[in-house]
Amino acid sequence: MDRRSFLKTTALGGSAAAATTLAAPAYAQGKRTLTMVTAWGRGLAGVFDAAQHVADNITAMSDGNLTIEIKAAGELVGAFEVFDAVTSGQADMYHAADYYFVGQHPAYAFFTAAPFGMTAQELLNWYHHGEGQAMHDELGQIFGLKPFLAGNTGAQAGGWFKKEINGPEDFNGLKFRMPGLGGKALGKLGASVQNIPGSEVYQALSSGAIDGTEWIGPWADEKAGFQEITKTYYTAGFHEPGAGLTLATNLDVFESLSPAHQKIIEVAAGDTHQWNLAQFLNNNGAALQRLQAGGVKVMEFPDSVWDAFGKASAEVMAENMDDDLFKKISDSYTASMKASSSWLKQSSGTYTAQRDRVLG
Amino acid sequence: MDRRSFLKTTALGGSAAAATTLAAPAYAQGKRTLTMVTAWGRGLAGVFDAAQHVADNITAMSDGNLTIEIKAAGELVGAFEVFDAVTSGQADMYHAADYYFVGQHPAYAFFTAAPFGMTAQELLNWYHHGEGQAMHDELGQIFGLKPFLAGNTGAQAGGWFKKEINGPEDFNGLKFRMPGLGGKALGKLGASVQNIPGSEVYQALSSGAIDGTEWIGPWADEKAGFQEITKTYYTAGFHEPGAGLTLATNLDVFESLSPAHQKIIEVAAGDTHQWNLAQFLNNNGAALQRLQAGGVKVMEFPDSVWDAFGKASAEVMAENMDDDLFKKISDSYTASMKASSSWLKQSSGTYTAQRDRVLG
Repeated sequence: MDRRSFLKTTALGGSAAAATTLAAPAYAQGKRTLTMVTAWGRGLAGVFDAAQHVADNITAMSDGNLTIEIKAAGELVGAFEVFDAVTSGQADMYHAADYYFVGQHPAYAFFTAAPFGMTAQELLNWYHHGEGQAMHDELGQIFGLKPFLAGNTGAQAGGWFKKEINGPEDFNGLKFRMPGLGGKALGKLGASVQNIPGSEVYQALSSGAIDGTEWIGPWADEKAGFQEITKTYYTAGFHEPGAGLTLATNLDVFESLSPAHQKIIEVAAGDTHQWNLAQFLNNNGAALQRLQAGGVKVMEFPDSVWDAFGKASAEVMAENMDDDLFKKISDSYTASMKASSSWLKQSSGTYTAQRDRVLG
Repeated sequence: MDRRSFLKTTALGGSAAAATTLAAPAYAQGKRTLTMVTAWGRGLAGVFDAAQHVADNITAMSDGNLTIEIKAAGELVGAFEVFDAVTSGQADMYHAADYYFVGQHPAYAFFTAAPFGMTAQELLNWYHHGEGQAMHDELGQIFGLKPFLAGNTGAQAGGWFKKEINGPEDFNGLKFRMPGLGGKALGKLGASVQNIPGSEVYQALSSGAIDGTEWIGPWADEKAGFQEITKTYYTAGFHEPGAGLTLATNLDVFESLSPAHQKIIEVAAGDTHQWNLAQFLNNNGAALQRLQAGGVKVMEFPDSVWDAFGKASAEVMAENMDDDLFKKISDSYTASMKASSSWLKQSSGTYTAQRDRVLG
């Protein structure tokens, strides 16, 4: 019997028993330990921290009645196997970036990052006060998952290159690590795009298996050590303007928890999202200064490259539009992004421009 | 006996009893109800929502063992009396904007907003990963409070005026509602600055008691109805670039709670911060369009006014620097803001500029 059938049977049995002999509902009994698998190597800066933070807070808030035990990538299953591990019931929950699972459904991209898509704040606006969370749930129901955003890297850097990028033609034939729909867009420029788990990127870049990579941003990239291999670093990228991380629980497991424990998971995820975003953004500035002091050349892509990124991204999005759910989510996402973006420009955009001008 | 003495006595008694006869610590007993007083009228858009959200989540996560009962402004004490109510033990916790309490200590401004200070994201970076939360705690200990950020309005609008502002001299003699250090800066331009609770601003503007007001931003301002009184609205302001809201618990009460319940309050506050910020930012764009469709003229302050705001703000900050704690917090805040701001400009700033350029 697989775990899901087992849980369904147990839950039904519990309900029947409760109706006849017990006052308390079936879920309100005893301590439970849930296994969280992650797409992150143990200790991987920022991303593993988010998994640890949400796990520790669930355990602490439930006074140990709902204890989360983390398995890093490779400890139970591989980084990209966490989705199948949780949908099959081998593990109870995963912490990962959902765009690793665009093979399962391309719309998973929207809950990490879409090329030329939302910043972290725009994603949050849509997720909590637009249709975002409901659409994440709709995707989750297909696979038997209950997802919550639980981390964000902020706008990711363009990445590490062994030679400078002066025009879109410089991507032709380049072996580059980039997951999700951003990677598919880069493929349209002729790059040979690979998806490699975070813990394995250093080795791939170092051995020459890839010519370049994006990872996250100055702080996490410095911890990963890419500056030891190459010194050419591009700051702003097009591919992940605010990459959300997801905590997804097997739906049967989630529904077997008490309402208080369900709420603990939900709120712990929300708190982790802001805590983790602030972690990346607080550390990136100082890390970039250290990288520069260590000889890293900090670059920006020229407009011609941004134009090519834009064209390729639009093509990738268009190719997925014959999937009804992808189109529904994309339309909602795009409309929300425009509304958010417009106000952010008029308010904090104008403010920070004036602050920079006045304070010099 | 006042409540604080009572709690201290009880806690000591409980410890002594535990040492001799009880295995469980004194805090692990039974259900508790805490009273939360707020600076917000019941239902006030966004700000009361934040208080409700954090209260409901604490109650739900504790399975009702820690139930939070909200008293809106005026139901137990007035909007600006919540600080004294909690420090004296009349109420257990408050939800408010801490810059209402610059009379108690001027450094409280930093935990809502300082003129020409941090955006919401910059504040979060400093709070959770710099020295912010520790400094908030240090202020709280003076008054017997345990504070957490638990809400944020985003960058606030310049506000509502009965005539246009073409230069700094137009503030001379203007009766204007603006709390905190921003209000003190506006006073240096000759404005007659008043601090009025949110629920009373409409009446004050309507009656002519004030000539103009800032409140929050398009969505909350529209709900307050200021567009019924005047049609001249300035978007970006200098005074509150990302106004944090605080949930502060009487320190003796907080320390009498179990570690699980303390963590529930902390995490509920963190989640509420992001949820509430997204609420304002998701709703502002559409609200501004409605206001404009209803005849409101949307304006930006000219550079000469921003220059005067900058000069006045610097003077106000300088005047408080002979307070050691103010200076310590200000120095930490300013250093963190510079580091955050620099990376945000290089990453999401460059990205959104390119997105706007490429997508048109």
